[in-house]
Amino acid sequence: MADEKKLTTRAEDFSAWYNELVLRAELADYAPVRGCMVIRPNGYGIWERMQQTLDQMFKDTGHKNAYFPLFIPQSFLQKEAQHVEGFAPETAVVTHGGGKELEEPLIVRPTSETIIYSMFAKWVQSYRDLPVLMNQWANVVRWEMRTRLFLRTLEFLWQEGHTAHASHDEAEEETRKMLGVYRDFMEGWMAMPVVTGQKTESEKFAGALRTYSCEAMMQDNKALQAGTSHNLGQNFAKAFDLKFQSESGAMEYAWNTSWGVSTRMVGGLVMTHSDDKGLVCPPRLAPLELVIVPIYRTDEERSRVLEGANRLKRSLDDWERRAPGRMRGENDARDGMKPGAKYYHWELRGVPLRMELGPRDIEKGQCVIVRRDTGEKASVNLLAIGEEVHERLIVMQDDMLIAARERREKHSVRHAISYDDFKSLMDGEGAFVYAGWCGSAECEAKVKEETKATIRCLPDEEFRSADTPTKCLRCGKASTEEALWARAY
Amino acid sequence: MADEKKLTTRAEDFSAWYNELVLRAELADYAPVRGCMVIRPNGYGIWERMQQTLDQMFKDTGHKNAYFPLFIPQSFLQKEAQHVEGFAPETAVVTHGGGKELEEPLIVRPTSETIIYSMFAKWVQSYRDLPVLMNQWANVVRWEMRTRLFLRTLEFLWQEGHTAHASHDEAEEETRKMLGVYRDFMEGWMAMPVVTGQKTESEKFAGALRTYSCEAMMQDNKALQAGTSHNLGQNFAKAFDLKFQSESGAMEYAWNTSWGVSTRMVGGLVMTHSDDKGLVCPPRLAPLELVIVPIYRTDEERSRVLEGANRLKRSLDDWERRAPGRMRGENDARDGMKPGAKYYHWELRGVPLRMELGPRDIEKGQCVIVRRDTGEKASVNLLAIGEEVHERLIVMQDDMLIAARERREKHSVRHAISYDDFKSLMDGEGAFVYAGWCGSAECEAKVKEETKATIRCLPDEEFRSADTPTKCLRCGKASTEEALWARAY
Repeated sequence: MADEKKLTTRAEDFSAWYNELVLRAELADYAPVRGCMVIRPNGYGIWERMQQTLDQMFKDTGHKNAYFPLFIPQSFLQKEAQHVEGFAPETAVVTHGGGKELEEPLIVRPTSETIIYSMFAKWVQSYRDLPVLMNQWANVVRWEMRTRLFLRTLEFLWQEGHTAHASHDEAEEETRKMLGVYRDFMEGWMAMPVVTGQKTESEKFAGALRTYSCEAMMQDNKALQAGTSHNLGQNFAKAFDLKFQSESGAMEYAWNTSWGVSTRMVGGLVMTHSDDKGLVCPPRLAPLELVIVPIYRTDEERSRVLEGANRLKRSLDDWERRAPGRMRGENDARDGMKPGAKYYHWELRGVPLRMELGPRDIEKGQCVIVRRDTGEKASVNLLAIGEEVHERLIVMQDDMLIAARERREKHSVRHAISYDDFKSLMDGEGAFVYAGWCGSAECEAKVKEETKATIRCLPDEEFRSADTPTKCLRCGKASTEEALWARAY
Repeated sequence: MADEKKLTTRAEDFSAWYNELVLRAELADYAPVRGCMVIRPNGYGIWERMQQTLDQMFKDTGHKNAYFPLFIPQSFLQKEAQHVEGFAPETAVVTHGGGKELEEPLIVRPTSETIIYSMFAKWVQSYRDLPVLMNQWANVVRWEMRTRLFLRTLEFLWQEGHTAHASHDEAEEETRKMLGVYRDFMEGWMAMPVVTGQKTESEKFAGALRTYSCEAMMQDNKALQAGTSHNLGQNFAKAFDLKFQSESGAMEYAWNTSWGVSTRMVGGLVMTHSDDKGLVCPPRLAPLELVIVPIYRTDEERSRVLEGANRLKRSLDDWERRAPGRMRGENDARDGMKPGAKYYHWELRGVPLRMELGPRDIEKGQCVIVRRDTGEKASVNLLAIGEEVHERLIVMQDDMLIAARERREKHSVRHAISYDDFKSLMDGEGAFVYAGWCGSAECEAKVKEETKATIRCLPDEEFRSADTPTKCLRCGKASTEEALWARAY
């Protein structure tokens, strides 16, 4: 059975481990088109739960969903100078439609600022029409050369929020608020701790005034940029003539923000928590929270145990009905498959809790619950099974965040470090290094060239070191900002 | 105020009425790219509720969501002969990516049979892997020349279900089951009655063995094909080598089905229920079910009434918390806008119930509730407001289906009709005409040419006439099938 072949371990080859896991846990598969992926039900189930959660968080902060076209006239992309420079090289271009060559080629959206703000310009007349708070769930295409399942694909699924405001400060507040929403989601649901902060000029979004990001540490100690939030200033408003009449009667350009997270988060979830047995999924995002594996040898045992397993499933379903969304279970009653093979099957796929039920368990009125993340086993009274499962799912969710945070802190360097030591660290096991920066793009570029590490962000206050670094990591001159340096996906 | 300009009436110009309504109720807007639309929050809110409901219905029937790529290699489309013939003329083609010309052009999916069954072929080995029951929510592109908001656009949003089975009969059962799901949704949620039946050979899906559809009657007595379900036979399985080892050990081709509904349904909803004042939306799909309009003249009245309106809103919110999803309301406290203008605003946007609250209502402990569909007014005791609103929403939903069905039956012709009378009827007010058909594609084509009417479907048994027609509508020869003829969108 293909399932029984072991995964390459993380220690052997982290990258091979990741690819094998994604394929064998049936999260995704390669598509016939280079660089594209198929998201299979096991992976899509995680994405769906991410979507539902975020969608509610966006609505709770006043945003409404809409949908804008896939195709963008080539001329639109060119209206904002930095934006076209950033995105034009990686676009897919439709040149023919309905059997004819088009007069103006169409770009398959790499992001939708241009088309969305051209529409806002049509809808907004007065300050009374502001703020406009919208979001769309959509697919986008960026012609990447080196692709990885979930992490970087030609096409990916995402949401992009787009807003328009009457002032810079209101836009800045929105930008920071949505960064906070992302952080709450990543920590509270994905159990993936993130460092938030501002991107440097050279790393900001093409066309933005300022970009903020959430940076997570993967198990190979590399950073994953998991979400970004941009204060676009008036750049797009000026390019698309998005003006409004202010309370005083003057015509002013609006202030925009945009913010997005994508299916890349599924890759981040995998690389944050999973182990050499396969996927480990935080309970709040697991499409299936538990699986019951009946254990029997004889036919007599079989009928008794299956009956018990069905009864157990029913009592969990009752709980699920009372507290929806937290206890979806499956009874793995497949015949002709040994319990060990079933354990393997579900461990690979990341189901948070496994319940083992044998004849002796039934006699004792108990079952064995095994946690996917720690492997911890416990015998549990069947009379209190709902409470026991519920409690374990909550504790597991919390423990996973704590474990991920501890791992990150263990691999974070906050003491002064020489540039040589930094280079060795980056070439070796990697780390998040908090160090000084003189503020020059030149030092930033040189570090990248020499170590493949980049400034992930200028961390927000709560992430900065108690002892403010005084010297630039690269040039040794006075530091103007504390920066978080790491290699990244 | 732009809002106060009256809509063109349905009697004056049905088509102009529809376009104006969609634009002015802010359901959608024209995009900068020819034939594309922007779905604005008011329209997207309806689509979201359609999606949520259908998604649950698909899951309840055992389907799982997945996501397949937007791009299809040109060669894939060509593997099924009828399929390419049907779709190739209306494709959008990506010829350049990342600044280079592609070796093989990519088609922007017009539908995903080819790419999905090529993946199924990779995943399915044995009868144990069957059935495969999948669905995807996605955007598709068909290069249409004449477009209408929601009804026919270059890009539209839809879901496409794709399944694989071990036998013809199982595939046929699935095809019919999903047609039934569509019907349940259209009648139970959209309050839009449909006739179900089989498409003729000339109208079936390109590549299908058999196509079934749901046909609804719009208020201009034209038909709208609102959903289709296809038994694809082994056509795609043979084209993509989708084989499985049967229980007996033989290698067999799988049997596929596909089925889809799209944002076109939003157009169907508009044209089924709306009136000359604007949108009428069935409560179960309304993003906002009720609006409170406070009525006051003096400042003293204003503060009393607004306080009452807030209290009313809170008691409705309490109800909503107890029975989620059925009582989302808004308190329209805009100053400087007269109650009449607010009525107009919300009528245009199709909010099912309006609650008027003035100083005398507050004294009497009541408010006035007005139903959007009938205009019926009633004074209702505020102490029982939750029950009153809840009840009215349910009754309104039911009444809308009944009214739509009565209208359809009034404009259905089931008696023998001469071809000349049929022609006049089609040129005049239109109808659903149930009449005989000799089964020849020639008669079908001639009727289309001469009257612009087509066979919408060969209706399922329950829709057929008590007196089976004996003669073909066109040639007068013996009828082999009862057909439903009408002009269509």
